[in-house]
Amino acid sequence: MTPIDFWYSIGSTYSYLTILRLPKVARKEGVDIRWRPFNVRHVMVEQNNIPFKDKPIKTAYMWRDIERRAPRYGLSPKLPAPYPLSGLVLANQVALLGFEEGWGEAYTRVTYRRWFEAGQPAGENPNLCDSLVEVGQDPVRVVEIAQSQEIVDALERETAQAMELGVFGSPSFVVKDEVFWGDDRLEDAIAWAKFGRL
Amino acid sequence: MTPIDFWYSIGSTYSYLTILRLPKVARKEGVDIRWRPFNVRHVMVEQNNIPFKDKPIKTAYMWRDIERRAPRYGLSPKLPAPYPLSGLVLANQVALLGFEEGWGEAYTRVTYRRWFEAGQPAGENPNLCDSLVEVGQDPVRVVEIAQSQEIVDALERETAQAMELGVFGSPSFVVKDEVFWGDDRLEDAIAWAKFGRL
Repeated sequence: MTPIDFWYSIGSTYSYLTILRLPKVARKEGVDIRWRPFNVRHVMVEQNNIPFKDKPIKTAYMWRDIERRAPRYGLSPKLPAPYPLSGLVLANQVALLGFEEGWGEAYTRVTYRRWFEAGQPAGENPNLCDSLVEVGQDPVRVVEIAQSQEIVDALERETAQAMELGVFGSPSFVVKDEVFWGDDRLEDAIAWAKFGRL
Repeated sequence: MTPIDFWYSIGSTYSYLTILRLPKVARKEGVDIRWRPFNVRHVMVEQNNIPFKDKPIKTAYMWRDIERRAPRYGLSPKLPAPYPLSGLVLANQVALLGFEEGWGEAYTRVTYRRWFEAGQPAGENPNLCDSLVEVGQDPVRVVEIAQSQEIVDALERETAQAMELGVFGSPSFVVKDEVFWGDDRLEDAIAWAKFGRL
């Protein structure tokens, strides 16, 4: 079956729903998911597409929409979570390193839990250190490598690739050359991967 | 059961999916829907929340997303449809008059079909006249009344009420004081009307 590339940024609000429910959904549906952190803020600034800045009504709706949908997935977020994240770039550099070393998915999930359920912004302390320790990593080592030129460049390359594919928001799911945007399009992406149609 | 107020503007792209599938869904689910045309453009300008202006990547995605989802509802739109509509305000004034006289839903559906399936912009001719004739109305009479101060004021009052409720886009579904935004939230709104939760 066609794999699904799951493009996301730690820093995206709706991605909380996806990141916490995705492993269970993927197992149940038998689909292969590749987690691809990127810098959605860079894409949004480039494309003049900032979803919630200076939009209080839409922002309030977004939190309420997440709050209503979370129980469906067994989640109990404490909303609104701190937003936007000043540590967005570092959070995703750490995730990218994590995928090179095998703990990227675990880190993404625990840092989102702390952000959305304990009110601690991802990409900064205490969330950053505590999440790394929880997934068995040395925070000093990880943060140093995550800020190295190699990882800085790697995240920029991933972000450029996301843009080439037509990704403009997080979460997005890419099945071959079809982009599906939003937690609410996960089921569409799975259907496309399985059947080539909805 | 709590009724659902369906706030929409002729001029909204995703509302095509809702408007064409809603009567069937409402019958099947046994829910009571009140159709409420308003001027979403006014709300978007007020709130600095223009979804597709100067956003070519997001706009291309929107058309593709609608194209992929339409067959699920038995629809075959010819996309992209002409957008944005210069006759948005008149189209919705006509709809509002139509609801006072009992042909508002029929007009909304036939004008959307012409717009999305024959490529004729709603709110201007030939779409406007042909749609009115199709629902048994005299276009000259209707267009004159639709532009009268009474209907102009009525659409502005409806738009103000939509904003008071927290509506910021089309389509939106309001169940008591809960707002659900987007064609993809119709099922959430129905669940809320029936059970008070998702």
